[in-house]
Amino acid sequence: MRALVTGGAGFIGSHLVDRLLARGDDVTVLDNFSTGQEEFLADARRSGGLRLIRGDLADPATLAEATADQETVFHFAANADVRRGLENPYRDLEQNTLGTFRVLEAMRASGVRRLVFASTGSVYGEPEVFPTPESCPFPVQTSLYGAAKLAGEALASAYAHGYGFEVVVLRLVSVLGPRYHHGHVIDFCRRLRADPTTIEVLGDGRQRKSYLQVDDAIAAVLLATERSPGPLDIYNVGLDEHCSVDESLSWICERMDLRPRRCYSGGTRGWPGDSPFVLLDTGRIRGLGWRPRWTLRAAIGDTLDYLLANPWLFARGDR
Amino acid sequence: MRALVTGGAGFIGSHLVDRLLARGDDVTVLDNFSTGQEEFLADARRSGGLRLIRGDLADPATLAEATADQETVFHFAANADVRRGLENPYRDLEQNTLGTFRVLEAMRASGVRRLVFASTGSVYGEPEVFPTPESCPFPVQTSLYGAAKLAGEALASAYAHGYGFEVVVLRLVSVLGPRYHHGHVIDFCRRLRADPTTIEVLGDGRQRKSYLQVDDAIAAVLLATERSPGPLDIYNVGLDEHCSVDESLSWICERMDLRPRRCYSGGTRGWPGDSPFVLLDTGRIRGLGWRPRWTLRAAIGDTLDYLLANPWLFARGDR
Repeated sequence: MRALVTGGAGFIGSHLVDRLLARGDDVTVLDNFSTGQEEFLADARRSGGLRLIRGDLADPATLAEATADQETVFHFAANADVRRGLENPYRDLEQNTLGTFRVLEAMRASGVRRLVFASTGSVYGEPEVFPTPESCPFPVQTSLYGAAKLAGEALASAYAHGYGFEVVVLRLVSVLGPRYHHGHVIDFCRRLRADPTTIEVLGDGRQRKSYLQVDDAIAAVLLATERSPGPLDIYNVGLDEHCSVDESLSWICERMDLRPRRCYSGGTRGWPGDSPFVLLDTGRIRGLGWRPRWTLRAAIGDTLDYLLANPWLFARGDR
Repeated sequence: MRALVTGGAGFIGSHLVDRLLARGDDVTVLDNFSTGQEEFLADARRSGGLRLIRGDLADPATLAEATADQETVFHFAANADVRRGLENPYRDLEQNTLGTFRVLEAMRASGVRRLVFASTGSVYGEPEVFPTPESCPFPVQTSLYGAAKLAGEALASAYAHGYGFEVVVLRLVSVLGPRYHHGHVIDFCRRLRADPTTIEVLGDGRQRKSYLQVDDAIAAVLLATERSPGPLDIYNVGLDEHCSVDESLSWICERMDLRPRRCYSGGTRGWPGDSPFVLLDTGRIRGLGWRPRWTLRAAIGDTLDYLLANPWLFARGDR
């Protein structure tokens, strides 16, 4: 298969690139390296089959070059910083909605019709049904990130309906594992390295979250890409387990052999738009044969092992 | 109340302006007159309380001027041409998503927190539940118009959650009545005037639609604005009746005293993205005390009377 992976130098995207190359696909990566890392493509470069385009979704010529002669576009480029949406509300719209629109338009111009879109469980806002199925009651958006990703989904759906696109949408929970560099595990880890005696916890620590190891996420992406009946299929991807922020902090402290005092910022949410409970119903993707191999605790441990072995990531700042 | 009505020279917006002025509000209209009409503001001008700003949502300075010192923004400016979305997919995104984002940002900068947003029943795509409630299963978008309006709703919801906005969203069915100038009634009417012997019907004529008279729509807008508990309330607005395209054509022909031969373009949809069945559950807005006064057939008849008395609208072209 000839595939374009936007955001292919990012955390999840680079794992997808490695897997596609390993099975012999021709892979083009488009990445602007705003959060993507050269290091994440080291394995891919060694494989010899990688074509890398450094550029931005905002540049039509770059997108035209990247989409030309592709069979499938995996659109994984995104702003993944949910927490700071309110500091700059245009960022999510620009990167997650307009970026997706530009990819769709470039595909339409290039005659590429197959899109795999990395969406998010954040599109459920604060749902009332748990585990939350894809067909849950029409949700209300509580974050700019969720709103912008929902808009991306909506555009892709309209392209499926109106232009004959084949679209697979994956609503992922937070993903963990090697190359992870953004989220609560690195936040805790970074701050515990700076001050091992005290740790601030956003919210009351009781927020319940589901996570997913990146290997399991990529397996779901590839399975859905191969087996979806089309023309538009939407899948939740997450573990059936969840843990509290407090539990996850305990696992992190245990692995780092630290016993910090915990200070809670208070409230049931870590920040405005943080969902107090995330647990997705994954019956649909399981119906395709997907089974996650990692437990939640093992995924957090694996992530911590990676971070502690790659301290250069901490120097990149909280982004 | 000091109110800004974006799109206040348009079909629905200008009726809202008239009603707000009639009750003594200070009303600012922002309109670029791309589809708005000078004639629609004739009554408003006579009232003396109207402030008109000619300008576009794309101009930040104009939006800053328009939102300054307002209490409520009624955001009614939009591209309302659902049918031609596929001819220019950027138009819906630009006017209905980015336009809404710009209004929200101007409000945030001006310290205005109350938004009333004219959305659409098209956000339900092709629902499976009839009548369709606001909490129906998470819909899939089938038109660029619906996708772009949903994105506008999602942004407004995120602003309610993240910035403390008070937001009322009205999901309207197609609206009819005086100043109507876009949709199936004027399409049929225009073509019957050109050729009274034959009429082409898009689809199989069996598409079932609900409509609403503009007086009833404005009553719902004002009631929801006054009585919504907040901070985010979403209401369907439509009649509990529906008719087929064939029935509505029969009423039009009867009123025009014509008996044309009907040619069907075929298929269950008028165009890609046309929903074969529109019927909204309006229990929520009725719970606030709203009761429509017009029947569906009377609304179509009233629209036709208006169009035949205002032939200048036909000269504006099919837009």
